[in-house]
Amino acid sequence: MTFKEFKATWTPIIDSYLADHLKSEVNDTKISQIMSYSVMAGGKRLRPLLFLATLDAINSKINDEEIRIACGIELIHTYSLIHDDLPAMDNDDYRRGKLTSHKKWGEAEAILAGDALLPMGIKWIAQGSNSAKLVAIITEAVGPNGMVGGQYLDIDSTNNKSVADNSDFINKMEWLKTGCLIKACVEMAVEHGNASPSQKELLLQFAQDFGRSYQIYDDLVDVVETSAEAGKKTHKDLESGKNNTLTLLGITKSRVELNKLIAHAQNCLKDINSDILTGFLDLYKKVL
Amino acid sequence: MTFKEFKATWTPIIDSYLADHLKSEVNDTKISQIMSYSVMAGGKRLRPLLFLATLDAINSKINDEEIRIACGIELIHTYSLIHDDLPAMDNDDYRRGKLTSHKKWGEAEAILAGDALLPMGIKWIAQGSNSAKLVAIITEAVGPNGMVGGQYLDIDSTNNKSVADNSDFINKMEWLKTGCLIKACVEMAVEHGNASPSQKELLLQFAQDFGRSYQIYDDLVDVVETSAEAGKKTHKDLESGKNNTLTLLGITKSRVELNKLIAHAQNCLKDINSDILTGFLDLYKKVL
Repeated sequence: MTFKEFKATWTPIIDSYLADHLKSEVNDTKISQIMSYSVMAGGKRLRPLLFLATLDAINSKINDEEIRIACGIELIHTYSLIHDDLPAMDNDDYRRGKLTSHKKWGEAEAILAGDALLPMGIKWIAQGSNSAKLVAIITEAVGPNGMVGGQYLDIDSTNNKSVADNSDFINKMEWLKTGCLIKACVEMAVEHGNASPSQKELLLQFAQDFGRSYQIYDDLVDVVETSAEAGKKTHKDLESGKNNTLTLLGITKSRVELNKLIAHAQNCLKDINSDILTGFLDLYKKVL
Repeated sequence: MTFKEFKATWTPIIDSYLADHLKSEVNDTKISQIMSYSVMAGGKRLRPLLFLATLDAINSKINDEEIRIACGIELIHTYSLIHDDLPAMDNDDYRRGKLTSHKKWGEAEAILAGDALLPMGIKWIAQGSNSAKLVAIITEAVGPNGMVGGQYLDIDSTNNKSVADNSDFINKMEWLKTGCLIKACVEMAVEHGNASPSQKELLLQFAQDFGRSYQIYDDLVDVVETSAEAGKKTHKDLESGKNNTLTLLGITKSRVELNKLIAHAQNCLKDINSDILTGFLDLYKKVL
């Protein structure tokens, strides 16, 4: 199966699971609506697909339980977007071409929608896997030593010129913000699907490269695409005093760095022999 | 052992565990400091103590793993206080006699401190229990059908006179806001400590009564105590247009209701024979 076919098979299944279960498992209609608004706003489902593709790469079955875990990851990712967009954070009005949650529903509602999606996502992962280990992986990845830690460093260093050329700081911040959660998708699949030690090592290295690439890709989208293409305000990082790989290296060197990471990631997959996982790396072509 | 002795034994152990592990398990010193500021602000540790006391009541051992679970609950409780105090929510400047997190550190920092404490608390529960079931209990209790759902109903109904005399709505809102998490402490202990079916039934009924009482108690504190006694602004609910049991029933009838719940809770404990759990109900004496 190609990456395209895999994506075409599983994306509608993920989408319906999310829509159906946000309706059936949230008692209050209005809260359900506010949560669904952001979850069903047309995300690429990259993280759940990555979890499922990793399972596929190690010949592990995808049943309803695995879809529940995959969709739990998407709930958590959506929570992070809602909170990142808040006025006190990045203060964004649009996301994926639609009004952000706080613009649509109000600030308290947006904070609470995020606060509702996070534990619900973790619950789905716990129930789908019946594994405290998977819960430990995901909570570590989105906690103070992961995604939230990265978001804090981002907020704390915005308009702080002293870190603008500190590549260690910027690498660390971008890894925490984006890489950790992406790596956790692969790590949970490796754990859940009982990968062999050698598969595990290669897949985790692939995840490391893929996660790091993703943030550079996202920074490049900000300058390469128009707002209409990206579905959100672009050319914004530089204006708002954000420090990232792009402001550190510039466009040309960022592309070189991204190409290097992709080549390394591809190399990890040589012995795994998964066309589907390799296909994830084509995503980056549009900014190269 | 009496409730007083139990509390005097375990409170310092909970306090040191929290202080030590927020330091050793959070990599970034500044984030650790912001999280610790609120966690170490002098809370009564009611929820972790309730978890431990329930274990004790069913003769289940308290080791390091159980302390980790108990402290995980406290992290989650603290997250909820930080987010409830935010400008977009209850907009409180003081909590437990100290500046609230957003007043002390800034709004983005407070949102992120909460966002860091929630997954970290869940992680501690997952690791201490090695049980996906406990994770499902806690995440259900604090998600859209629990605490966050209650907070949403509270925000949504503030200054809405049409619900002011709707006792079903108010009971539901207060149960979700406060009762759910308190009940989850008992439910996790019952599950973790393998209570017998009859113990389980009695303890869950006790938890139901205790959880419901706690919100009425908290509403009464708002009118009965001065700000100095309560460590936060009091006489605030009525001013800010909040609907709760107290605005519904008035002081006298709220006290009657609270006494009724306490009597019922005490009755559940008759056959459990736990002086320690019974002692929790004395907490309410100061508002009766």
